[in-house]
Amino acid sequence: MDFNIIKPLLVEDAKGKIVLLVMDGLGGLPMEPGGKTELETAHTPNMDALAEKSMLGLHEGIRPGITPGSGPAHLSLFGYDPLKYVVGRGALSALGIDFDLQENDIAARGNFCTVDEEGRVTDRRAGRIPTEVSEGLCRLLRENVRIPGYEVFLEPVKEYRFLLVIRGEGLKANIQETDPQGVGKKPLKACALDSDSEKAAEIVQEFVRQAEKVLANESPANMFLLRGFAQLPDWPKFPDGLGLKAIAIAMYPMYRGVAKLVGMDSPPAAQSYEEEIDMLEENWDAYDFFFVHIKKTDSYGEDGDFEKKVHEIEKVDALIPRIMALDPSVLIITGDHSTPCLLKTHSWHPVPVLLYSKVCRPDGIASFGEGACRQGGLGVRFPAFALMSLALANAGRLEKFGA
Amino acid sequence: MDFNIIKPLLVEDAKGKIVLLVMDGLGGLPMEPGGKTELETAHTPNMDALAEKSMLGLHEGIRPGITPGSGPAHLSLFGYDPLKYVVGRGALSALGIDFDLQENDIAARGNFCTVDEEGRVTDRRAGRIPTEVSEGLCRLLRENVRIPGYEVFLEPVKEYRFLLVIRGEGLKANIQETDPQGVGKKPLKACALDSDSEKAAEIVQEFVRQAEKVLANESPANMFLLRGFAQLPDWPKFPDGLGLKAIAIAMYPMYRGVAKLVGMDSPPAAQSYEEEIDMLEENWDAYDFFFVHIKKTDSYGEDGDFEKKVHEIEKVDALIPRIMALDPSVLIITGDHSTPCLLKTHSWHPVPVLLYSKVCRPDGIASFGEGACRQGGLGVRFPAFALMSLALANAGRLEKFGA
Repeated sequence: MDFNIIKPLLVEDAKGKIVLLVMDGLGGLPMEPGGKTELETAHTPNMDALAEKSMLGLHEGIRPGITPGSGPAHLSLFGYDPLKYVVGRGALSALGIDFDLQENDIAARGNFCTVDEEGRVTDRRAGRIPTEVSEGLCRLLRENVRIPGYEVFLEPVKEYRFLLVIRGEGLKANIQETDPQGVGKKPLKACALDSDSEKAAEIVQEFVRQAEKVLANESPANMFLLRGFAQLPDWPKFPDGLGLKAIAIAMYPMYRGVAKLVGMDSPPAAQSYEEEIDMLEENWDAYDFFFVHIKKTDSYGEDGDFEKKVHEIEKVDALIPRIMALDPSVLIITGDHSTPCLLKTHSWHPVPVLLYSKVCRPDGIASFGEGACRQGGLGVRFPAFALMSLALANAGRLEKFGA
Repeated sequence: MDFNIIKPLLVEDAKGKIVLLVMDGLGGLPMEPGGKTELETAHTPNMDALAEKSMLGLHEGIRPGITPGSGPAHLSLFGYDPLKYVVGRGALSALGIDFDLQENDIAARGNFCTVDEEGRVTDRRAGRIPTEVSEGLCRLLRENVRIPGYEVFLEPVKEYRFLLVIRGEGLKANIQETDPQGVGKKPLKACALDSDSEKAAEIVQEFVRQAEKVLANESPANMFLLRGFAQLPDWPKFPDGLGLKAIAIAMYPMYRGVAKLVGMDSPPAAQSYEEEIDMLEENWDAYDFFFVHIKKTDSYGEDGDFEKKVHEIEKVDALIPRIMALDPSVLIITGDHSTPCLLKTHSWHPVPVLLYSKVCRPDGIASFGEGACRQGGLGVRFPAFALMSLALANAGRLEKFGA
């Protein structure tokens, strides 16, 4: 979607409300030739009935054959072409653990590692130390590193991975990664890659000097590597660019984080699907756009647990009447990417999508599944980042282009 | 379509003739859930029979969810991506009333308005004065404003709207609009926005000075606002870029205007569908490309009159045998955009398209309607501005690309 095209077309004081219901990793594959996918296997009477009044299709999050990560996959659903809007990995790490990254902060991903007496890396992951060890090391660094005028945050992520954030004035993040990308080599120096980033690079180097002394006697994690220095991106914000006051309802920090990144409000995490729909109802009058995220379809996909993924889809199906009772102008039901149980991982396969509105041109296909979606009016490779302009149109929120 | 790709591929002395039959606002919606669209309801034996030998699909004029205006919608059918080829509003106004805008002319849209004693706008549309009053005011200005060395044209458009054209040497149209975009404010000065436009801006300012004196004692329209200063765009011309001597056959000025804009010939307006087909026959030997425009399908769509739109489609169906008797190499039957009776306005819904040629790969679907087109070989979101390269290919007018 091109915000420059959309923004001048926005209808003032439009009222139509849009719900984007994302079942993470929804798209699937049959477990054996001729079989059905997870969504096709699931008994989904509510979604099937809705499909008959909707447009169906398969969307592609990035480009053909490109498997989306969770961040780009959601950005794409929110209307941001993920090849154009790239989030730095450090910033993405911060989002993933619900760290409240602020403008001007610089963030980096850290890996605890092992170095020998000469400072050469012998294990880039320090034997995959457990998260609790990482927590202790982060605390140790937090207590012993001091950089006057700057705040330094260290947060464990998972196993040997941690997040480094430096807060202060005048920082820019175009800084050389210190990971030498192999064993037997010394960590690289965190040099500035442009003149605006020199201040920040100096501070990172000072942090590294102090921190390596603090860790010198630890084992096996006696050093660390820093990667993906990044700041919050300076993008058009979703509420401003699309004229939609937006709220993200999700159970996991990563998804609330990506939503916050584009300017959506995000109340504290819900604890169950029912609570997510409670939050949808409670906030119905206060917002125009509702992103509702369902995580477990992806988790069971990654586990390769076909039956549990099917059951999870069925649980979501049971929520549809409560959503429809709110009478949304537009309801989109889809996934962010495919996570077929057969593959136990994210995949590139296009994702089933259903777009309901009173003024769509219905396909009349009373079934929501990969095969049905292949027959639908949205086509088989609908760009995910164009869904929002279509949603705006269906919600009566766009003027015509040209006279 | 990219003229840089097409032009080197054009076959010299190719003979295949192409007819583009546009039913304005053809695409539709069912009036109730489960119902049929206008085109699906219409009894169209000739188009259905032709469909069986053709490729079907749904085309998208601009981008997903973007509702096309008539100008961009037709440009797209002619092969011009409307996001790349943007016509200034003043030039579009001139086209819409059949004013013969020439190279170097600058054109602007005018609104008659009301100002108070201090010159502040009190009504931006002068109480929506009727067209006849506007005609009188244009005449008054025409007779009383003199700018030596330049010709000034004033033409009523509709109600309070008029067209201003200034003709002379060395004019460029990058000029500040005078509309202050609200009441209680004075009109803005028509300043040049680049140095090339300074001459034209001076002339516009001189026009405004003289004209406001002429109108001073009129009521309620004692002033005017000027918007959308523009010139004819400097684009690749259709006949040159596509190697097609082209003629536009239409009953309304807007469509003849857009066709002229891209370099098609346009004889005087036809008075009936039969006369349009007469003109097609009479000009068959002299041209390669024939744009035939049918207006009323759109008008009845805007009226929300389902039965009349259906009937109009049936009248067009009856013309098909006369067109096919000419043995065109390619016949495209489509609309420029959708105008569903349900919505009474242009809409974003993809538009049915049928492309007949002896060498197309037929879909074998003996029906022309939105549902049938969803199954067709052109797909559900064929870019309208790619239809012309496909037509050229089917008319035997394109060499292969690369050795």
